[in-house]
Amino acid sequence: MSLFVQKYGGTSVGSIERIEAVADKVAAFRAQGHGMVVVLSAMSGETNRLIDLAYQIQEKPDPRELDVLVSTGEQVTIALLSMALKKRGYDACSYTGGQVKILTDNAHTKARIQSIDVERMRVDLDDGKVIVVAGFQGVDDDGNITTLGRGGSDTTGVALAAALDATECQIYTDVDGVYTTDPRVVDSARRLDRITFEEMLEMASLGSKVLQIRAVEFAGKYKVPLRVLSTFEEGNGTLISLDEEDNDMEQPVVSGIAFNRDEAKLTIRGVPDTPGVACRILAPVGGDNIEVDVIVQNISAVDGTTDFTFTVHRNDLSKAREVLERASAELGAREVITDDKIAKVSIVGVGMRSHANVASRMFNALGEDNINIQMITTSEIKISVIIDERYLELAVRALHSEFELSEKER
Amino acid sequence: MSLFVQKYGGTSVGSIERIEAVADKVAAFRAQGHGMVVVLSAMSGETNRLIDLAYQIQEKPDPRELDVLVSTGEQVTIALLSMALKKRGYDACSYTGGQVKILTDNAHTKARIQSIDVERMRVDLDDGKVIVVAGFQGVDDDGNITTLGRGGSDTTGVALAAALDATECQIYTDVDGVYTTDPRVVDSARRLDRITFEEMLEMASLGSKVLQIRAVEFAGKYKVPLRVLSTFEEGNGTLISLDEEDNDMEQPVVSGIAFNRDEAKLTIRGVPDTPGVACRILAPVGGDNIEVDVIVQNISAVDGTTDFTFTVHRNDLSKAREVLERASAELGAREVITDDKIAKVSIVGVGMRSHANVASRMFNALGEDNINIQMITTSEIKISVIIDERYLELAVRALHSEFELSEKER
Repeated sequence: MSLFVQKYGGTSVGSIERIEAVADKVAAFRAQGHGMVVVLSAMSGETNRLIDLAYQIQEKPDPRELDVLVSTGEQVTIALLSMALKKRGYDACSYTGGQVKILTDNAHTKARIQSIDVERMRVDLDDGKVIVVAGFQGVDDDGNITTLGRGGSDTTGVALAAALDATECQIYTDVDGVYTTDPRVVDSARRLDRITFEEMLEMASLGSKVLQIRAVEFAGKYKVPLRVLSTFEEGNGTLISLDEEDNDMEQPVVSGIAFNRDEAKLTIRGVPDTPGVACRILAPVGGDNIEVDVIVQNISAVDGTTDFTFTVHRNDLSKAREVLERASAELGAREVITDDKIAKVSIVGVGMRSHANVASRMFNALGEDNINIQMITTSEIKISVIIDERYLELAVRALHSEFELSEKER
Repeated sequence: MSLFVQKYGGTSVGSIERIEAVADKVAAFRAQGHGMVVVLSAMSGETNRLIDLAYQIQEKPDPRELDVLVSTGEQVTIALLSMALKKRGYDACSYTGGQVKILTDNAHTKARIQSIDVERMRVDLDDGKVIVVAGFQGVDDDGNITTLGRGGSDTTGVALAAALDATECQIYTDVDGVYTTDPRVVDSARRLDRITFEEMLEMASLGSKVLQIRAVEFAGKYKVPLRVLSTFEEGNGTLISLDEEDNDMEQPVVSGIAFNRDEAKLTIRGVPDTPGVACRILAPVGGDNIEVDVIVQNISAVDGTTDFTFTVHRNDLSKAREVLERASAELGAREVITDDKIAKVSIVGVGMRSHANVASRMFNALGEDNINIQMITTSEIKISVIIDERYLELAVRALHSEFELSEKER
């Protein structure tokens, strides 16, 4: 028999009817003899409702009290699911984060899990009980309630699976798995049966928002097999696991195409190319808590100056521009130009490691559709390009086809 | 400086605006240098909303899980009030029942407090913090969340006041104190400045529903001065305290007039008057969990039979009648008659102890208004009569006047 940790998100427990449906699913697994630990989010909308109450009182709600407040959302759903399981004749017991001693640091609203005491849960599992745990929350050393930040229930699920050495951590959500790319852009996008932790991290951070990044990192670190699947449809979802080198199936070169249009580009032109100039440009930007993504610097021109380009989130563009104008004046650069009509497209795949010419295939495919590449960055399992955002869909489709990701092309 | 425990009910914290108003009140006390512990109920309506969710799932919700569920209501209000106090520049810290170790037995949904660990609260009080505690809840020995039953927040307040040896436990509610009788019946009903625990118990159990009986018992047992006052109006409310014999003001004979019309009367006539007959009539009634209030048995008639009369809650009348019909048949009694058009009127006062003729003054006052007395019971500080419910208001007014309880008569 296996031990499964299943996490259901807010939409999955958004009403009494849906909680009953989750109880059916959990009961079916338990009926097969599996040990079951269930992690729940708050009913969809509830966390926002609570946060809204806090903001009606304080412009910047006290973080400790905010955690006391919002942690009630999950406490409601765990009680209700336990009742629904008992109604079905299955013994069940709900626990808050504090009750199963999910110990965290004291960084309220964004705490990190430090340890979990599994003793009580082991006893319950041995007794055949279904354990229902409130996601997203823990307690610090002094017994103060903490929360893990938005989406933290995924992390709770993975942490429990790691602590209990579970067979698999299953994340139930409103999509049926991880896709080769966004099906709204490419009709023939295909659900991946499996993907590695590394690939998932690159996909997630690039905009395929299925799982919380921290949960994937956590699962990778503790080697917890992670499965994403739909609460509302049958199916095996996508298994996120270690890269098994002895996999007898040949790895595809590229696993998926990620993209986003959240970024804006800033270029400082005609900067004297002296040692330390990159730092003198970027340090003030980082100092203002602006996150920089892609950075490109070209070799110097014949006049001894260089151009320096980077991207930031579009929301940070005006702030970044101010900082950069000041730096430009200090450095005696020629000008600062910005562009927020850009998009980033990435191909991701562990297969790249052992395949040459992946980059040239990518650039060629884009070139054939007359898509101009503005910036390029690469990592071992990912190549990203910045292009004019008007060509985003065209680029994604071209790459999806080039790397034969569609259902019909397998 | 004093230490006050203040409890605010659901109506007092029923909206963000009202929570802000409570924060103003608490802050004003704290600003005078008093130590402050605040106990809160859930926002009005919230507990019912949560219970309703449970009943949508289980016909008879699991008590352990019901406690997990409903205890979230108070957790929301304590966080919000702490935020409102911090906004006003007062340091505050919220605690659930479990966090301040309000240890109870494991009788879910109606648990009883066994102990409170005040160590953490003492540290906070020394630091000048306002402590905001979730009412109505605790934890059992195994860390399971328990609740004290409806209205249990009053009990939490009194228990905290006892454990912390507070100057006074102040119960803020939507009435401004305890009255000589219901002002809706007697215009000139007067708010009592003070009343003894014993009197309050008699008043409360007889229908002046201001405080939870258990809280009053608890306060009496631990000699915690208890004050009932209005959240919404200024005033000193009513202080409920020990009977101070050395009070230099003369005690009034009667402190108040209580009444209710929740009861129904059952009479079994022509019962052979043999030893043990009372038990043979009442045991089956009690065995069916029907609570019996007033019991009267007259001396035997010349034929050696007697009449036996008692009252029950009107909701239990038909069930009680069935039980009594069976007993009547077994005992060979003449008949069973019932009447649900009755009311109970009581005069309450510790002054009765030292005044003769209180009963005859009561009966005389009723007689002058031609009100027939159907049953009488007495205790040391209370005399109750059962009358036709049509005469209830008339009786209350007559007694209120007879014992000079009105404002103008003082």
